[in-house]
Amino acid sequence: MTESLASHPDRLFPADPGTRQIARELYADVEHFPILSPHGHVPAEWIADDVPFTDPTALLVTPDHYVTRLIHTAGVPLGELGVGAGETLGEDLSRTGWRRFAESWPLFDGTASGYWLRSEFEQVFGLPAEMVETFCPGNADAVYDAIAAKLAEPDFRPRRLFEDFNIEVLATTDDPLDSLEAHERLAKDESFRGRVVPTFRPDAYINIAHPEWAERIERLTAEASGGVAGFAGYLRALENRRRYFVDHGAVSADHGVRTPLTLRLEPSEAEALFEKARRGEADAADRDAFEAHMMWEMARMSVEDGIVMTIHPGSFRNHHGPTFAEFGGDTGHDIPFAVNYTQGVHALLQDFGTAKDFHLVLFTLDETVFSRELAPLAGFYPSVYIGSPWWFLDAPDAMLRFRSAVTETAGFSRSSGFIDDTRAYCSIPARHDTSRRIEASFLARLVAEHRITEARAHELIVDIVDRAPRRVFKL
Amino acid sequence: MTESLASHPDRLFPADPGTRQIARELYADVEHFPILSPHGHVPAEWIADDVPFTDPTALLVTPDHYVTRLIHTAGVPLGELGVGAGETLGEDLSRTGWRRFAESWPLFDGTASGYWLRSEFEQVFGLPAEMVETFCPGNADAVYDAIAAKLAEPDFRPRRLFEDFNIEVLATTDDPLDSLEAHERLAKDESFRGRVVPTFRPDAYINIAHPEWAERIERLTAEASGGVAGFAGYLRALENRRRYFVDHGAVSADHGVRTPLTLRLEPSEAEALFEKARRGEADAADRDAFEAHMMWEMARMSVEDGIVMTIHPGSFRNHHGPTFAEFGGDTGHDIPFAVNYTQGVHALLQDFGTAKDFHLVLFTLDETVFSRELAPLAGFYPSVYIGSPWWFLDAPDAMLRFRSAVTETAGFSRSSGFIDDTRAYCSIPARHDTSRRIEASFLARLVAEHRITEARAHELIVDIVDRAPRRVFKL
Amino acid sequence: MTESLASHPDRLFPADPGTRQIARELYADVEHFPILSPHGHVPAEWIADDVPFTDPTALLVTPDHYVTRLIHTAGVPLGELGVGAGETLGEDLSRTGWRRFAESWPLFDGTASGYWLRSEFEQVFGLPAEMVETFCPGNADAVYDAIAAKLAEPDFRPRRLFEDFNIEVLATTDDPLDSLEAHERLAKDESFRGRVVPTFRPDAYINIAHPEWAERIERLTAEASGGVAGFAGYLRALENRRRYFVDHGAVSADHGVRTPLTLRLEPSEAEALFEKARRGEADAADRDAFEAHMMWEMARMSVEDGIVMTIHPGSFRNHHGPTFAEFGGDTGHDIPFAVNYTQGVHALLQDFGTAKDFHLVLFTLDETVFSRELAPLAGFYPSVYIGSPWWFLDAPDAMLRFRSAVTETAGFSRSSGFIDDTRAYCSIPARHDTSRRIEASFLARLVAEHRITEARAHELIVDIVDRAPRRVFKL
Repeated sequence: MTESLASHPDRLFPADPGTRQIARELYADVEHFPILSPHGHVPAEWIADDVPFTDPTALLVTPDHYVTRLIHTAGVPLGELGVGAGETLGEDLSRTGWRRFAESWPLFDGTASGYWLRSEFEQVFGLPAEMVETFCPGNADAVYDAIAAKLAEPDFRPRRLFEDFNIEVLATTDDPLDSLEAHERLAKDESFRGRVVPTFRPDAYINIAHPEWAERIERLTAEASGGVAGFAGYLRALENRRRYFVDHGAVSADHGVRTPLTLRLEPSEAEALFEKARRGEADAADRDAFEAHMMWEMARMSVEDGIVMTIHPGSFRNHHGPTFAEFGGDTGHDIPFAVNYTQGVHALLQDFGTAKDFHLVLFTLDETVFSRELAPLAGFYPSVYIGSPWWFLDAPDAMLRFRSAVTETAGFSRSSGFIDDTRAYCSIPARHDTSRRIEASFLARLVAEHRITEARAHELIVDIVDRAPRRVFKL
Repeated sequence: MTESLASHPDRLFPADPGTRQIARELYADVEHFPILSPHGHVPAEWIADDVPFTDPTALLVTPDHYVTRLIHTAGVPLGELGVGAGETLGEDLSRTGWRRFAESWPLFDGTASGYWLRSEFEQVFGLPAEMVETFCPGNADAVYDAIAAKLAEPDFRPRRLFEDFNIEVLATTDDPLDSLEAHERLAKDESFRGRVVPTFRPDAYINIAHPEWAERIERLTAEASGGVAGFAGYLRALENRRRYFVDHGAVSADHGVRTPLTLRLEPSEAEALFEKARRGEADAADRDAFEAHMMWEMARMSVEDGIVMTIHPGSFRNHHGPTFAEFGGDTGHDIPFAVNYTQGVHALLQDFGTAKDFHLVLFTLDETVFSRELAPLAGFYPSVYIGSPWWFLDAPDAMLRFRSAVTETAGFSRSSGFIDDTRAYCSIPARHDTSRRIEASFLARLVAEHRITEARAHELIVDIVDRAPRRVFKL
Repeated sequence: MTESLASHPDRLFPADPGTRQIARELYADVEHFPILSPHGHVPAEWIADDVPFTDPTALLVTPDHYVTRLIHTAGVPLGELGVGAGETLGEDLSRTGWRRFAESWPLFDGTASGYWLRSEFEQVFGLPAEMVETFCPGNADAVYDAIAAKLAEPDFRPRRLFEDFNIEVLATTDDPLDSLEAHERLAKDESFRGRVVPTFRPDAYINIAHPEWAERIERLTAEASGGVAGFAGYLRALENRRRYFVDHGAVSADHGVRTPLTLRLEPSEAEALFEKARRGEADAADRDAFEAHMMWEMARMSVEDGIVMTIHPGSFRNHHGPTFAEFGGDTGHDIPFAVNYTQGVHALLQDFGTAKDFHLVLFTLDETVFSRELAPLAGFYPSVYIGSPWWFLDAPDAMLRFRSAVTETAGFSRSSGFIDDTRAYCSIPARHDTSRRIEASFLARLVAEHRITEARAHELIVDIVDRAPRRVFKL
């Protein structure tokens, strides 16, 4: 019998038998809880239109830069994986991409992606463990065919999977000018009992270095400023669009900023930067200053409209220029760097740190800020929550390091709850399950070391998995 | 039977049964050793005057910013906890504060403070475990009354507790112009067998940005410069006051600097900065340069007078301006940031790194310097000792990370021994006990992994708990 | 019976019995594999000339700054350990140094050096465990005599040890103008079956702040530029010497740079810096810019000549000026500082990140970049490999932290394989054995937690220990 990693009942639990037994019992409490996903990248259209997935490669490989980047390390050009080929790959490209994936399968050992993929293969597509553990060029076509056959079944349409995955809330990520038509259809559809909520993501309207910024600002102001011109109109338009998002169920606004810097500029200074940018004369320092000020403005708006504010700085986007030129963004080479949250969020927190019902979730790709900055900030400011480890850090060991780093200073009440942040729809159950197993493992260790009582651990696991995301994201 | 975390004999020990057994035996060696506390914030007057503690809130909640900051995250204004209300709270405020504390009790799960408080409740005040584990608004008044009753007993006066806690040495933290009258009284009091030593803490006389700096300098020079004027008189006055502290038992001088930077300015440059500051014309760069140079001067004085020098940079003090404006400093929002010790202490160590009997203890709130900078520095310079993890890091997991980070490079002989750094008098035994249990746990793992012999581990635990603080702090 | 740490069959394995059993079995697979050492500091002459080692101190203490620095922390002047005394110490100095070492033996508890030394004592020199564990001034002479007696035997000559240590490949580190005569002799010697390969280390020719830089450049250009003058001749000479190294078996070029910065300057800019440096007019910023540009040039050459490029930035060399002035470099006070790889290697990777067969191994002394920067970089770029933890980090806990930090993002295929980086010849087996035990321990945990299958773990341990260094270093 081949050992199945993806379905072993004790997977991800600590090896010590006593601690493992405690972890099992804690996990059992939350194993079947519905999935709350307050931040992610699945398109609402998938659910609204319930369009069948086309093929295994286009579903599992091409759009997942976690997967393509690792195959790329073996020297496989991204083009062979269908990156840049548009929505449908065609049988040939899809097969080729899949074979490259199969060749690279051993590279995934020990990675978070390898674990999620195994879970999808076995638990979503029902492949036998033996097929999964021997996945290689020799059986690549057989695996492809088995998955393709499943995808053709009505049970594998997005809506049915939504139900099977036991998703209660799924947040998407959306352009401020998006009509949110798909969300609206879903909300009105009585046959659909899930909740798909939009997220306001205005990066491209705030980053004045973005090549299309000026053009976007034209559109934004034209559509939403209510006739107000200039910087005041720009702010008004953002406020209006946030309101539109709230009316369509949005609970949060997300900000992928370069650094955590926030600034409160004088209105005239901010306006001058805005006008300079419109004239195409802004430099890198202007870009950072404007973004920093706009984080202050976004916080101000959040205090007014109640939208939860999430920020995730510290990624050098599109690190490899030639790959970006050929394949565009989100292709696996956004590389983290060190950030300084303590000084960065100072200006914002001066004014809004204790504002009533303001929620600010701080994410990081730089683990060093967990114990040094985020736990102390969230351990004082009522508004600040520590974002769960995500993007490179949403993996078992990293999650354990996170809990170890923040808990002794900030306890369990100051973190956001798990965030899957994914466009890989079929990996959502595996990701949440991983998180639940790791939370159970961490709590089990504290119980075994007599640092919390077993009774409290049973309450805490429910709080972490279910109440925290509802509370922090106002679900 | 309610599980008691605070009195379980295996608390904080590793779960693996074999390793736990080794940890138990190592801990047994040092469990009853006297407490050496070479740095902390308990006022000498408490011991000298032996004044009874007034009430549970004023003792356990209000002055402990570890506790108030976590309650504050739940949206409770610091004023409701008695912060800023002066020395006595009054029955109403004390009761209200206590109830807020009881409401927030679950927030403390998994935190260091939660563990210390449990220990105080059970082991200092003798509350039953059931009362502690069910602490909530429902029994808040009962808990309050039980503690208040204890506080009224003569056994709960500071001196008797000093004995019960088995404290041998307790260092206070004092203003350079303090008369040290309380220390003097204690030293002369034959009925008191403990040792309460002052610590020279000249931050407010070195930080030229401090609003009262100029005024303090006037006083300092007037009182202690022996008639010498200007910068030379300032240095002379500091030297004289250090000597006064030594004569009153001081063993160390402590420096809460902004960054670890040290500089050896030309005397004329330093003098110019000093005069500029007196004229109120110094800017932020001047402030940093003057502080950096003064660290060099403090090291020079330490080489001369034998006082151990401790520094702890990297805290953004009073991060939330409005809270500082309303409640003052030390109210829970000093937030750490990244530091650079390697370049920072270079100038100082060039001149004094190998000076005979010079001891320099480097503390950090930024864990990343443990393996990268502090272990390598302390692993070469005879003068440099790695400060124990404190302030946010004085907790079980953080202490284990510390030992793991420094030991392989610097061994066990280069760290300072445990520092409680606390103004929470009743938490002192729990803090030291935590440290002893964690040291035993770390050593037990090395024994179980055959990295040190069990015989050596029994010697090392004694060295770590007892000999290291005596050696490093010249007790 | 004295417990022997160095020969316990379970040494360095995790304590949990189930995990330990898995680790034992994984380790058994690779325990007897030949040693591949693609980077180190043993002189080729030792092997070529097969000269007997002179005395225990000169072999084990004096040249090993890991050892001397820790003795130095106890206040022992480096001169008493023979540092700076030249190649032969003389009986008196050698004995004195050895006694100082014996006095300091307890300082090594828990350090990597302590573990290696124990292994050398027991496994290379055959000392009884009792003698090793009681090593102290009382038996210092006896230990000295026992080792000295062994060194006098023909079995303890470098070549015989090379065979006994089961070394297959040993890389040395060499000046670009080195004749590589010793390497040549070894290659031609049919009685020697090992492989000793040179490594191109041009730091002193690239760092324009080096006091002998201008003089070295004269020699380099005179010897190897083929008559081309100026900057072009400098580049040509480097290219020619690299080719010479390749012809003598070199597989890699190593760069001890100040920071990870790389830049692609315009040729005219680079030339101008070069000429400025030759005139002695370059400042610190010029030094960094020239080094950064030369890293780009070195990468370009690597793409052309196939030499693996390794870089290790982030060390403040010779931190204590007075010690450097008296004893020179490599005397234990190179202190790490934080680095920024993400921005640093950007320019280089823009041009060469996906170049065919280009291998770039990034080492660090700053652990924080493992998860934040190196795993993401190596998890995308086919050229980038994560350098194994070395220098301060080549120790059990640090190695485990490394694997935990990088594996979930980059898997097992993107790291360099173990690097001993040592001039302590007799410690080579212990260092590689440590690495193998730790890799087995890490994999065993993943197996126990059902994160990889046991079958795959048996493949991975072979890949990590044997295939990775061959693949990454093109052995």
